[in-house]
Amino acid sequence: MTTGEESASAAKADVEAPPSTESRGKAALGTAAVATKKRKLQMRGGWKRGLAVFDFILRLSAIAAALGAATAMGTSGETLPFFTQFFQFQATYNDLPTFTFFVVGNAIVSGYLVLSLPFSIVGIVRPTIVGARLLLLIFDTVMVALATASTASATAIVYLAHNGNSSANWIAICQQFNDFCQRISGAVVASSIAAFIFILLVIISAMILRKH
Amino acid sequence: MTTGEESASAAKADVEAPPSTESRGKAALGTAAVATKKRKLQMRGGWKRGLAVFDFILRLSAIAAALGAATAMGTSGETLPFFTQFFQFQATYNDLPTFTFFVVGNAIVSGYLVLSLPFSIVGIVRPTIVGARLLLLIFDTVMVALATASTASATAIVYLAHNGNSSANWIAICQQFNDFCQRISGAVVASSIAAFIFILLVIISAMILRKH
Repeated sequence: MTTGEESASAAKADVEAPPSTESRGKAALGTAAVATKKRKLQMRGGWKRGLAVFDFILRLSAIAAALGAATAMGTSGETLPFFTQFFQFQATYNDLPTFTFFVVGNAIVSGYLVLSLPFSIVGIVRPTIVGARLLLLIFDTVMVALATASTASATAIVYLAHNGNSSANWIAICQQFNDFCQRISGAVVASSIAAFIFILLVIISAMILRKH
Repeated sequence: MTTGEESASAAKADVEAPPSTESRGKAALGTAAVATKKRKLQMRGGWKRGLAVFDFILRLSAIAAALGAATAMGTSGETLPFFTQFFQFQATYNDLPTFTFFVVGNAIVSGYLVLSLPFSIVGIVRPTIVGARLLLLIFDTVMVALATASTASATAIVYLAHNGNSSANWIAICQQFNDFCQRISGAVVASSIAAFIFILLVIISAMILRKH
């Protein structure tokens, strides 16, 4: 963050360089309208930079949420303390393909978020650059879909594990595998937080992108 | 579409009105640079209008897909031709809460799309208006999440209905309810098309929003 802030202020100084302090003073004495316009532009730049910093912080939170979700699901597994001669009762996430998709999906989301951090920093340093912001928005939108898809499919299965379904004759497995079910429920909640953050990221990018 | 096109051309004429043909001719004779710039601006406006028209067409396709998905799922149901003294074998979408969510989600998506059509037309008539476009982008992003969530959760259950899961002792029900399964699979495919169109809509809105 510190280096980002430093280069941000450096860039600001760079932008302010062309009108030197002397000429700016003259302008203030001369036409007040020009100064007001300049201040307005600076304020707008500051507002966009604030949004860009918020974008960066949200990305860090989303990394935590997505990585937490993938880890919680990936390390889930429970072996019941009793077994028969032929069968040992155990549940792991890769018994169910949906949970494997969940782990892979959240891992991809985390990886993308880490790769997107440099672009987010570019957005803080130079809030006026359009290309990087548009790129972030497009990939963020795709990631909204990926994060939501992993969350929703896992939620459907977690619901089934908790409640079962009498019509389809699917039994609830959470009575037996209680710890496993708590773990996967937590993972689903973390992943839904990541999906929600992605929606916010897209909206922030759109607000930065819009023309004045 | 015809009225949209008509008012679009009317608006174009309106925009072109200020420099009369005579003065434009003078400008062309005088400074070629001004004319080139004007043409460039017009081209950019036309390019944005083209994107806006594409946005409108995509919305119409998405209405068809989402409405088709909701209808296919909502009218699904199969009663097997044999029954015991106590039990009649039948499957309907509302046996599974996930499928109810799918129908409601796709109905909301269709309703939103119909309501968004006027805003899309405003975007065709005046491609430079920022507010309507930003509003569309924000709600489209939320709808990406809703459409993807309904699709993904239903897909997880459809997969389970087809394949079952031996670890959780959930049996595949598609051997018995074949027609039902084909119907819900079709609904899921239609819904995923709608979700994909929403991603395109967000990207189009972002490209229209970006400043020059």
